[in-house]
Amino acid sequence: MSKVLVFGHQNPDTDAITSAISFAYLQNQLGVAAEAVALGPVNEETAYALNHFETAAPRIVTTAANETQQVMLVDHNEAQQSIADIADLEVLAVVDHHRIANFETANPLYYRGEPVGCTNTIILKLYKEHGIAIPEKIAGLMLSAIVSDSLLFKSPTCTPEDVAAAKELAVISKTDLESYGLDMLKAGTNLSTKSEADLLNMDAKSFPMGDKNVRIGQVNTVDVNEVLARQVKLEAEMTKQNAEGGFDLFILVITDILASDSAILVIGSDQDKVEKAFETKLTNNQAILPGVVSRKKQVVPQLTAAFK
Amino acid sequence: MSKVLVFGHQNPDTDAITSAISFAYLQNQLGVAAEAVALGPVNEETAYALNHFETAAPRIVTTAANETQQVMLVDHNEAQQSIADIADLEVLAVVDHHRIANFETANPLYYRGEPVGCTNTIILKLYKEHGIAIPEKIAGLMLSAIVSDSLLFKSPTCTPEDVAAAKELAVISKTDLESYGLDMLKAGTNLSTKSEADLLNMDAKSFPMGDKNVRIGQVNTVDVNEVLARQVKLEAEMTKQNAEGGFDLFILVITDILASDSAILVIGSDQDKVEKAFETKLTNNQAILPGVVSRKKQVVPQLTAAFK
Repeated sequence: MSKVLVFGHQNPDTDAITSAISFAYLQNQLGVAAEAVALGPVNEETAYALNHFETAAPRIVTTAANETQQVMLVDHNEAQQSIADIADLEVLAVVDHHRIANFETANPLYYRGEPVGCTNTIILKLYKEHGIAIPEKIAGLMLSAIVSDSLLFKSPTCTPEDVAAAKELAVISKTDLESYGLDMLKAGTNLSTKSEADLLNMDAKSFPMGDKNVRIGQVNTVDVNEVLARQVKLEAEMTKQNAEGGFDLFILVITDILASDSAILVIGSDQDKVEKAFETKLTNNQAILPGVVSRKKQVVPQLTAAFK
Repeated sequence: MSKVLVFGHQNPDTDAITSAISFAYLQNQLGVAAEAVALGPVNEETAYALNHFETAAPRIVTTAANETQQVMLVDHNEAQQSIADIADLEVLAVVDHHRIANFETANPLYYRGEPVGCTNTIILKLYKEHGIAIPEKIAGLMLSAIVSDSLLFKSPTCTPEDVAAAKELAVISKTDLESYGLDMLKAGTNLSTKSEADLLNMDAKSFPMGDKNVRIGQVNTVDVNEVLARQVKLEAEMTKQNAEGGFDLFILVITDILASDSAILVIGSDQDKVEKAFETKLTNNQAILPGVVSRKKQVVPQLTAAFK
């Protein structure tokens, strides 16, 4: 068998990068000439994990057919999230924890999908099923992915299997799960070097609600007050973006990844709809939403209903 | 969780029927209210296996949404091979050994695909991974599926994993693998009650080759001579079908599932192309093709090349 490239999705997060590393190593032990690569640069959180566990970031590729015909996908399956020339390649294997869509092969393949919180939780099972020992550093990277995807087990997507896997990997990698996990998440939430526009644009999406255009941004932090201390400048930028982008309402969700709460900062029309959606009162354009961490599950549906 | 229906593909074969039974039982042991059903009646081979292992044939359904919203697919994934109202259902799990195509979900799911010869080879792994004991009768049905899909390990699709799984299941089900397997395959090759037209139509497909229309039928048997004894009537029917169906050439592939050879009976034009394709000489419209059992892999490509 010629070389096989293993990679996660575009705009890679910690699970995408580290599951490529852990799955490629497993394949190597099984006799496959697999190489972990990445479809983009690593983010600050992932860089922290790679540095801590003394592992180089994977080589970045944008196409694969120029060097191999065979690939393995981790942490994704949908073609539009994958490598640019995916249609020209044979997918030998997939390990993923997302829905299956826009994915098709000509031949039977190895596909391992499970509805858990992290790809590396599945990969840990594969190591066990094959009786392959996990090197200490790779166990640390796998652990990092579970911490990242589960926000230290606080995300609604986290399952008991993810928690058990993380504990097992912490032992193998000789890692203090809570303190390392916190440090890694903090590394990924270093907002101090970012401008107000950066903060608002990092992960903002527009949502049509009723006849209004609602913009919702989200930042993860371990110190909500650090972000709220920039309220005046943030509000000025939100007002500017509302005018320039044609948004009726801008909501910045500032998620405390440790407390599993979010503060919201709201600028624009229809603030009563926001209060109705979250059964709260806005004071100084702010409110606290206890238990809210997921925009997809805990913010957008509630707001959509309030605008109906 | 409400009831979950588990089923294999349309026109079910032994693997489709028995993998629904074995996977539903596994789910039951895991606490899921799963019921094995079938998308059509069982064939003679499957009926023999069910009778031998004292198991009732699954209830036949044509739709599922009238009784549940949640299903699990075995031995297939493509929508056109599945239940009629698959688009209205949530697929919770798939266990399969085919390519993935025309398959899409809204949510993450359990998907276990492996490039082995039989779905039940994968299901045996699942029992082991969950530490669930396989009842004797279900082990016998799983064994039957591996024998069926692999033609007693002689098909080019059979892997070492299928062989090992069958041996393990033979022990659990206290079955003499060779003698039972042979009897079961024979039960599926009872051609004596079928007319010549039945034999030709059982599994015939048309293939455009060059500017010709080639019809290729295949029957499995344990006694090639029993079929060839009907040569005169078969040739008359082939000639009739060529005229009525606009086929230039009709090839009946009579596969000896024990010897892993095939005899061919050829009626129509371009017999020289047939001789070229298989590097043989036709005598009395017949030839023996040593080692040929797969139409898809060992007949169609060679003929297609000869017609170019």
